[in-house]
Amino acid sequence: MKKILLIPDSFKGTLSSIQVCGIMRRELAKVFPGAEILSLPVADGGEGSVDAFLEALGGEKRRVCVKGPFLEELEAFYGVLPDGKTAVIEMAACAGLPLVEGRANPSETSTYGVGELMLHAAESGCTTILLGLGGSCTNDGGVGAAAAAGIRFLDRAGTAFLPVGGTLDRIDRIDSSGLNGSLKKAAITVMCDIDNPLTGPQGAAAVFAPQKGADEKMVQRLDDNLNALRAVVQRQAEGQTDFSLLPGAGAAGGMGFGMTAFFHAPLKMGIETVLDTVQFDALLENADLVFTGEGRLDSQSARGKVVSGVCARAVQRQVPVLAVVGQIGEGAELLYEQGLSAVFSINTAPVDFSVAKTHAAKNLAVTMENLARLLGIGIR
Amino acid sequence: MKKILLIPDSFKGTLSSIQVCGIMRRELAKVFPGAEILSLPVADGGEGSVDAFLEALGGEKRRVCVKGPFLEELEAFYGVLPDGKTAVIEMAACAGLPLVEGRANPSETSTYGVGELMLHAAESGCTTILLGLGGSCTNDGGVGAAAAAGIRFLDRAGTAFLPVGGTLDRIDRIDSSGLNGSLKKAAITVMCDIDNPLTGPQGAAAVFAPQKGADEKMVQRLDDNLNALRAVVQRQAEGQTDFSLLPGAGAAGGMGFGMTAFFHAPLKMGIETVLDTVQFDALLENADLVFTGEGRLDSQSARGKVVSGVCARAVQRQVPVLAVVGQIGEGAELLYEQGLSAVFSINTAPVDFSVAKTHAAKNLAVTMENLARLLGIGIR
Repeated sequence: MKKILLIPDSFKGTLSSIQVCGIMRRELAKVFPGAEILSLPVADGGEGSVDAFLEALGGEKRRVCVKGPFLEELEAFYGVLPDGKTAVIEMAACAGLPLVEGRANPSETSTYGVGELMLHAAESGCTTILLGLGGSCTNDGGVGAAAAAGIRFLDRAGTAFLPVGGTLDRIDRIDSSGLNGSLKKAAITVMCDIDNPLTGPQGAAAVFAPQKGADEKMVQRLDDNLNALRAVVQRQAEGQTDFSLLPGAGAAGGMGFGMTAFFHAPLKMGIETVLDTVQFDALLENADLVFTGEGRLDSQSARGKVVSGVCARAVQRQVPVLAVVGQIGEGAELLYEQGLSAVFSINTAPVDFSVAKTHAAKNLAVTMENLARLLGIGIR
Repeated sequence: MKKILLIPDSFKGTLSSIQVCGIMRRELAKVFPGAEILSLPVADGGEGSVDAFLEALGGEKRRVCVKGPFLEELEAFYGVLPDGKTAVIEMAACAGLPLVEGRANPSETSTYGVGELMLHAAESGCTTILLGLGGSCTNDGGVGAAAAAGIRFLDRAGTAFLPVGGTLDRIDRIDSSGLNGSLKKAAITVMCDIDNPLTGPQGAAAVFAPQKGADEKMVQRLDDNLNALRAVVQRQAEGQTDFSLLPGAGAAGGMGFGMTAFFHAPLKMGIETVLDTVQFDALLENADLVFTGEGRLDSQSARGKVVSGVCARAVQRQVPVLAVVGQIGEGAELLYEQGLSAVFSINTAPVDFSVAKTHAAKNLAVTMENLARLLGIGIR
């Protein structure tokens, strides 16, 4: 074997995709010391997405002072890929749930800092921005980020204000004329792995606000307010698409909606963004084998998730794909039809997840060691 | 792949070696329909050993009426391999623990029927007898089997009697002159996978009698009685080896001792007996791959167990060996040095053994399916 691509998702709750790549690489290198092994850890847009892109492609991490969830000063960061033109931002860096531990309140938190990060990237020359949603503490429909970028939100009295989740219903008019010119020209792609609409029983507030600290009453109010925001946007858009129904509009407290409505940014699955950004199709040239993986492979995985996305491209170039996973669930065999060559679970013993998760790194290593040894025999 | 050998042990508590072979064969045949796949399920001497040999080699199962553990009439069986000369007997068939459920009593049960089976085999023309110990309900030091074969046990009054575990101390003299001629000429090999001596803290009574129904007091008496038997044998043997110290002398309630003392039968590991009987070395010619496996592979496995035994022979012919196991334990990597190419666990999910064991067949199938698929790619 001369060229091996590693492109795993994280194993949720146990190993990051960077860790998975590290272990895979180490074990494969023992058996194939001369092989070119490329680590392409998948970022889904949540915490760790910037690091994952920088691990895959190199580049630099920029630290920037922006506003935090409660508009306090905060040191956040984003990544710039080696082309110097592509910025990777994870909104969790300045609007993440861990930042508000003990004071979570989705009716008062803002995505303002996210807009500042985008602005900083665009003004320092980045023409492509990959923005990862996920892990947010906000429910402001993305108006904070829009405000930071120069869009004004006006109340009935015509006074501009910075709306948050609890005050979206006070917006009477949106003035986009001040949107920053660099940002306006930038190609912004939003990474978003969920397909919830903006409002309603499957919407941002109903499904995600409770884990951000909202009680039942607040959930209802947040949902009403997102509906109010949607109404204003619709009224001014005059016949444009209703972005609130887009799959993913409800991601990150309505940030999905805001990014499409205010920045015209398309929502894409994390895996597709990664595959495009690392130029996976080109990397597949001359590759002997692709390793992918995730926490659990099952019938859900067949629908646009990491393994599925990787297989779709690899099968076109006739490169075999092996998945190494935390669990092989019902329906995993559906992936065979999508081009998956074989799947192996890392469980070396019949023990409960509470025990197994503490051995995840070792178990992955043992599994990879043995797959490498098997591949090393070269049986036909 | 043109030729694949399957030679697994049982997965204790879940799958017999015959079941393991069946699943392995089915999954491999899907990917390699043209391959010659030989099933050689390993018999360790316990229950199922006759079936395992017949599965591996063919032959017939003979049903014979003999005496049971309490000397009652019982239909038992043994196997005759296709050469018509080799008999396979498992003592569990007429002296097994399940036969005395609810009335287990190792001080009163007899191996008489085992001797009858041996006699039947020898008198019907078998010149080689493979006798599997294991799963017994007896503690009679093999005197029952010896008695059935014509050896007489005399008390101090010079009266012949049939000793059992509780009356071994009444033996004053042993008269071997009446040993059946056919049996005397037969080559008897005893399959025995434990290495306990006849008596003492690691002996037959101390270690195994409790699970056969003995309380503490009975254990002591059974141990004393085995010592008494040993003393008589030693006294009459005049300088011969002290068979009681042989590893395995304490197997099956001292049956290991009795088989060496009364029948001069060597004790061998089940796997070695299988490897020799199926002529494994010859089968390895032109084999592309060997699959083996067991319930748990760990540092214990490196010492003369199934995977270890298989590797020792395969490595000499440079045939790769894959192990598929219920659990990869500490020290499994020691097997690499013995020639194991790689090991895979069948656990598809992080669940406790109480759950996993109910999915063992399915999990083995999934694992074999994916190994076959991986092998089918033919990556070098």
